Amino acid sequence: MSFHLDARLGQDTLPVGRLELCDIRLLNDARWPWLVLVPQRSDCSEIFDLSNDEQLQLARETALISKMLQKNSSADKINTGALGNIVRQLHVHVIARFEGDANWPGPVWGFGTAERYSEAAARLLISQLQSEIKPHVF
Amino acid sequence: MSFHLDARLGQDTLPVGRLELCDIRLLNDARWPWLVLVPQRSDCSEIFDLSNDEQLQLARETALISKMLQKNSSADKINTGALGNIVRQLHVHVIARFEGDANWPGPVWGFGTAERYSEAAARLLISQLQSEIKPHVF
Repeated sequence: MSFHLDARLGQDTLPVGRLELCDIRLLNDARWPWLVLVPQRSDCSEIFDLSNDEQLQLARETALISKMLQKNSSADKINTGALGNIVRQLHVHVIARFEGDANWPGPVWGFGTAERYSEAAARLLISQLQSEIKPHVF
Repeated sequence: MSFHLDARLGQDTLPVGRLELCDIRLLNDARWPWLVLVPQRSDCSEIFDLSNDEQLQLARETALISKMLQKNSSADKINTGALGNIVRQLHVHVIARFEGDANWPGPVWGFGTAERYSEAAARLLISQLQSEIKPHVF
């Protein structure tokens, strides 16, 4: 079955690149550097819906993206999560958190209203992220 | 270096069992069936602070606990997350969510005030969980 990105995920995010398993996307919310990994598999809503090999690949790609985002943003803490209460298509959040940020130390999901990036700011950040994940892009 | 459970994690949770890498604990909050996996490693606050092998083992144990909790609770959705904004010792949350629950579809971290289990209810739930993870206990 061919893979289709959920419409809401597509609307809320911008494409960055693709790893072996996951499409890597930037959440269009300038309040936090926030990436979303979407495994290119249909009909998965829980991590354990993936095959065992895919679960391990997701763990590798989540760690890679987490390290990269931490380095790029100098975050105080990385938050990762797979919730999916609203969008059921399996996706993993990787978010750079800073002491004193908009909802520190609470979670970011569902907090306030997204502040969209300007086109120039999005282009710059995506290009930085792309050059960092380039060696790993599928 | 010997491993010591963070004092706040110890205070907020009850012991369930131990897998190869993680101590499995029940969050003492009856609003949601909520388990916490604590890798028995010192000085780790991010998942990528673990060795590569340990990261994969954490992914396996998180999937095992997620599947078990989903089966035990008949949850509509499992939420997993590694935040650590307050308690820096690395720990992974696995939470059973239900449509219409106390903060559905928002996240549960930091929401409202924990409702402690009665001793009898905690004992019963822990014993059910233990019998389900028993084949995997280290």
